Amino acid sequence: MTNQNVAIVGVGLIGGSIGLALRKRGLAAEVIGIGRRQSSLDKALNYGAIDRAELDLKKGVASADVVIVASPVASVVEQVCLALASVGSQALVTDVGSTKATICAGIEKQAKIKTLAQQFVGSHPLAGDHRTGPENARADLLVGKTVVVTPTGKTFESTTDRAEAFWAALDARVVRMSPAEHDLALAATSHLPHLVASALSAATPDQWLSLVATGWADTTRVAAADPELWTQIFSQNKTALLEALDRLVDQIDQLRTGISAENWSQIQNTLQKAKRTRDALGN
Amino acid sequence: MTNQNVAIVGVGLIGGSIGLALRKRGLAAEVIGIGRRQSSLDKALNYGAIDRAELDLKKGVASADVVIVASPVASVVEQVCLALASVGSQALVTDVGSTKATICAGIEKQAKIKTLAQQFVGSHPLAGDHRTGPENARADLLVGKTVVVTPTGKTFESTTDRAEAFWAALDARVVRMSPAEHDLALAATSHLPHLVASALSAATPDQWLSLVATGWADTTRVAAADPELWTQIFSQNKTALLEALDRLVDQIDQLRTGISAENWSQIQNTLQKAKRTRDALGN
Repeated sequence: MTNQNVAIVGVGLIGGSIGLALRKRGLAAEVIGIGRRQSSLDKALNYGAIDRAELDLKKGVASADVVIVASPVASVVEQVCLALASVGSQALVTDVGSTKATICAGIEKQAKIKTLAQQFVGSHPLAGDHRTGPENARADLLVGKTVVVTPTGKTFESTTDRAEAFWAALDARVVRMSPAEHDLALAATSHLPHLVASALSAATPDQWLSLVATGWADTTRVAAADPELWTQIFSQNKTALLEALDRLVDQIDQLRTGISAENWSQIQNTLQKAKRTRDALGN
Repeated sequence: MTNQNVAIVGVGLIGGSIGLALRKRGLAAEVIGIGRRQSSLDKALNYGAIDRAELDLKKGVASADVVIVASPVASVVEQVCLALASVGSQALVTDVGSTKATICAGIEKQAKIKTLAQQFVGSHPLAGDHRTGPENARADLLVGKTVVVTPTGKTFESTTDRAEAFWAALDARVVRMSPAEHDLALAATSHLPHLVASALSAATPDQWLSLVATGWADTTRVAAADPELWTQIFSQNKTALLEALDRLVDQIDQLRTGISAENWSQIQNTLQKAKRTRDALGN
């Protein structure tokens, strides 16, 4: 995929990191950064994440062979559809949103069938961070990380292949799933941890905050993420998130019952199971 | 407190780190490591955490001016009482257990009143890690960390002062609380995060574990801690832990209701409150 023009809509942590990676690897002829505020684009230029900045999406994507929409999930449908309406007929458009079913269905509703099948497929790089913005972007953010690519029944195989090749060129590990399956999985592996971290942080009485240590700090770390972005994600993946939350509440209920009943062997067994699962991931 | 003999009962992460710190700072005439297995003591000797190893607690503490009992919470009462029965009448004994009310009450029941008042006070350095053992010990583990010292109504002021001076010499920040207040606070700031991390890990369906990223990894990190040690801690702080858990379950219920009702401004407000609390701690 060398010598292509890549337009990135939204040059925050993910968009900026993709730009840095493309430029560092010499994978793109030109990286065009598209954003709503000149100040963000200037930052991205200064950090070397993009070659050129553009406030107007239509103009920015006009020459692009690949468009990556990396804006907050609530804006993805609109910006992907705008991009699809403005790019050449050979260009590929994908996104990096943390939810996929709402986004893909929204685009499917608005885009022309042929354009949709040939030019769009959803993506989700599992490489976020609670620190946002181009100042935290890193050229290696995606290296070794998983990117889920989510074709629907309508997507042409060649479209999916192109998106997968784009991510593979950044040394990401590519996984293919349906949008619905992605959302079920990510509700459990990403959206629920954010909800739990926030609940734990919010439920800690102020007068004891001076007594927190690494356990609390680790378990609540992602509660520092952007509340607006995460409310959008919860909203777009409501049903799957509630299902994942029910599984957690069941587990917590069992632990609570076991502690009340002083059934310590049950408690130790659950902690052992949790440790095995956690240890398998490494640090 | 230089030129004193310090005996450390249990040379794991905390005990080993205290030994390293004392030796590096030249604060002790001799650091005596006491343990049940020669292999752990040999490790502690190799890592430079102790000057001398002793399998027999009575012999190990005989010459000590200060005894630090750093064994799993379920063994602390027994080992503190053994130490109090074997040390000289001027020696100070303290522990590093993660719970305080059960431990202090257990010791109060068994030790002679005068010995108790003059020679024992409980301590809890908030400096654990999910990695245990002397191989993870570090001379700076306690630097800048909080150590809670928990006198009871019976403890002499001079006893508490001595324990506080010991921890202050290792550059820890010392906080004085009653055992009961300590347990209420730590239930919220330490024991509950461990329970939640384990519940989240255990509730994640196996087939999706390959899709976890940093959010899940952070939020579940302490689920890798030792299940036996943590079952003991939950057991010793059952009532306060259940209270803290109830507060969390209330918070989760509110979030669940808000998500079901699509009350997104409520959700965003809770995430914002959680973020403010988390941001105040720093990374």
